[in-house]
Amino acid sequence: MGQLSVDNLLGIKYLKREDIDLIFNTADHFKEVLNRPIKKVPSLRDITIANLFFENSTRTKLSFELAEKRLSADVINFSSSSSSIKKGETLIDTANNILAMKVNMIVLRHPNPGSALLLSKNVNICIINAGDGTNEHPTQALLDTYSLKQKLGNLDGKKILIVGDILHSRVALSNIYALKLLNAKIKISCPLSLLPREIESLGVTIETEIDKALSWCDAANVLRVQHERMEKSYFPNNREYSMLFGLDRKKIDKLQKEIIILHPGPINRGVEISSELADSKNSIILDQVENGVAIRMAVIYLLASKMNY
Amino acid sequence: MGQLSVDNLLGIKYLKREDIDLIFNTADHFKEVLNRPIKKVPSLRDITIANLFFENSTRTKLSFELAEKRLSADVINFSSSSSSIKKGETLIDTANNILAMKVNMIVLRHPNPGSALLLSKNVNICIINAGDGTNEHPTQALLDTYSLKQKLGNLDGKKILIVGDILHSRVALSNIYALKLLNAKIKISCPLSLLPREIESLGVTIETEIDKALSWCDAANVLRVQHERMEKSYFPNNREYSMLFGLDRKKIDKLQKEIIILHPGPINRGVEISSELADSKNSIILDQVENGVAIRMAVIYLLASKMNY
Amino acid sequence: MGQLSVDNLLGIKYLKREDIDLIFNTADHFKEVLNRPIKKVPSLRDITIANLFFENSTRTKLSFELAEKRLSADVINFSSSSSSIKKGETLIDTANNILAMKVNMIVLRHPNPGSALLLSKNVNICIINAGDGTNEHPTQALLDTYSLKQKLGNLDGKKILIVGDILHSRVALSNIYALKLLNAKIKISCPLSLLPREIESLGVTIETEIDKALSWCDAANVLRVQHERMEKSYFPNNREYSMLFGLDRKKIDKLQKEIIILHPGPINRGVEISSELADSKNSIILDQVENGVAIRMAVIYLLASKMNY
Repeated sequence: MGQLSVDNLLGIKYLKREDIDLIFNTADHFKEVLNRPIKKVPSLRDITIANLFFENSTRTKLSFELAEKRLSADVINFSSSSSSIKKGETLIDTANNILAMKVNMIVLRHPNPGSALLLSKNVNICIINAGDGTNEHPTQALLDTYSLKQKLGNLDGKKILIVGDILHSRVALSNIYALKLLNAKIKISCPLSLLPREIESLGVTIETEIDKALSWCDAANVLRVQHERMEKSYFPNNREYSMLFGLDRKKIDKLQKEIIILHPGPINRGVEISSELADSKNSIILDQVENGVAIRMAVIYLLASKMNY
Repeated sequence: MGQLSVDNLLGIKYLKREDIDLIFNTADHFKEVLNRPIKKVPSLRDITIANLFFENSTRTKLSFELAEKRLSADVINFSSSSSSIKKGETLIDTANNILAMKVNMIVLRHPNPGSALLLSKNVNICIINAGDGTNEHPTQALLDTYSLKQKLGNLDGKKILIVGDILHSRVALSNIYALKLLNAKIKISCPLSLLPREIESLGVTIETEIDKALSWCDAANVLRVQHERMEKSYFPNNREYSMLFGLDRKKIDKLQKEIIILHPGPINRGVEISSELADSKNSIILDQVENGVAIRMAVIYLLASKMNY
Repeated sequence: MGQLSVDNLLGIKYLKREDIDLIFNTADHFKEVLNRPIKKVPSLRDITIANLFFENSTRTKLSFELAEKRLSADVINFSSSSSSIKKGETLIDTANNILAMKVNMIVLRHPNPGSALLLSKNVNICIINAGDGTNEHPTQALLDTYSLKQKLGNLDGKKILIVGDILHSRVALSNIYALKLLNAKIKISCPLSLLPREIESLGVTIETEIDKALSWCDAANVLRVQHERMEKSYFPNNREYSMLFGLDRKKIDKLQKEIIILHPGPINRGVEISSELADSKNSIILDQVENGVAIRMAVIYLLASKMNY
């Protein structure tokens, strides 16, 4: 089996095509393990992993924790509310302390873009970025593209639409990087107020008319309206957003073809996606969640196999 | 060994007498395990359990977590403060996500009555209700009646008094259902303002004079005054409550017989029960706690043995 | 191997010189274990430990949890925010409940001085004090003196300075007790407003001129400015504190000798210590963290070996 070209997973930006292929192949193996009655492998008995979550999270934290336990790693959890960051310690000091306690790997979620990169440059410990502000969320993009590949086969030339709050979305940015590496075509569709400047320099096209965008694509990744990240009002209200950019059965029926629907969760039912569509056979939302554990097992396993400990 | 008639533990309301007997017999076995130097059995190595606690809890959460670990299950914890329910996800979506991650069982504490039932009807995962608002708290009633049985033998015809805040108490409701199944006689005693309407339709009698109620009973289950659930004032103040309905040595001495005292905890010493009485030999409060782990091991074990995974 | 003279670790105050020697020798062994690829020993498979943290903590909590897991104990965590202390339960009742659930040991951090002693007198369970208000933090003093001994050899007659917020510091008090037992000479240096009354009765000398104090010592233990414990203002501001008592390269260069720098963490960089000095080769701050896991393993192991369970 091959090796990753990187020693940390800071972002899809730092990966090569071969890395993604290796992660997907390894995830195939772990997905098979997860469907056995005993879902655990003894691979990482000698590894200790600290999950440092400085932002609220259910799905990602749980998914990482399950991935770690299924690999038999020892797991230590931390959240901002119970930790001493309130006492003014720097993130680098926190990580150096964890390293001194002979922990091998840190899974970091942090509100500041670049925090995972900062740690990796200053602390000699393996870092997995589990979301750094509005920058990247690499394991999400890996599980999204892995789930797409299961439905569409090779993504070469496939047309993938990303709909919604691109401006605040680390999921969008990581997905764009991953889809480019896999040679997919990418279009984005959102209200102009949620469109980042210079986004086209990343090699995506823009279509602000949602119906045209949908009729173009093979699959649509519907982003969450992240109320908690919006300091001011980017659109009049949820109802208007829902009418214009919210995906529902009516918009899909007009297409006279079926497209695949992804959503990174948690869903705001009735805002960016209707309940009917979220629960329809177009939706692969729960496949994404299932694949997330296998993808995270693969990433942790491959990074651990590069360590000298 | 037999099987439960149910696939979830949503409430005592849904159990049969045979289910309670089976749970008690299984708990006898686990109680013996808990008194060995090594308190662990490898029974549920292949099971993963998520504890979802959307309300504060010490005793119940700790008791479930210990029961799960003693059975060698993998355990994932979640609390409302660190989870994404703040991001607006529905409870059903949260549970479906957990199911997609190949978790086998959810232990749910939630402020909304009926939340455990709602999940069981919508998500294909085994649910144990660890308290749903003012509705039921079935494992508490099982450990209460199990503890009573250890002291009184068969509960058939035994006289059990429930004292206190019946209106806000899931413990009272679950105990009433359990005691009925076990053919005990049930009386309740509380200020009129804390008396639910139509409570007599459940087959209990009411006695608002506490001294008469105490002289009738073989055992009294003293409920907590749940300040945190009372939006308005149900009685003048703690001191008045304590004088009228608080159990103390003086009220017991008048009886010229000894009765058994239960309390589900946490105790408000000096409010619903005096310190002296809580720590007296009448009290089986700490037996209840000890039995709680064995009862929860039994419930988890029996539900797991019905799963097709 | 010997035995401790105590059944709980409530404070250094209750230890004998032989206890410290035994803990250090045992820690030597565990330190060697922690440098193996597989850092775990099966010693305490039959022990369950509850970590009760009623104050925020990162380092201490993580260090205890890792120590417990490396010894293969079962671990239960609790924090004030998610527990029922908000429901008015006494600390003794909480501990008795935990004991009834067949937990063997409690690691307690609590804001009230004397809380660990209180529990040990009222509950028949082994207690380790992980910091009780402004009273003691015995494992911190053990890891500090253990780290000093690694650098200076036998501490007999060695000159140790404690700098800073003595008044609010459980670390200072526990260190003074430990250094006395090890026959070190102790001086303290701090603003007069942070000097406890009658501190000299403990056998320490005072030197309010930091330069004189530094030129006297072999090692300086720099305490955190604990803003969170100061209700009023004990010195004009951080900048003034830093100029007068903050350690930096300039103050050290004047000494024309090298001294060892300790800090219990978390560091306020630029307040009580400069970044340059904290990261210099004088600093053994990260050795302290590393040694902390071995010291805690030793304490837990030695206390567990005295239990009758």
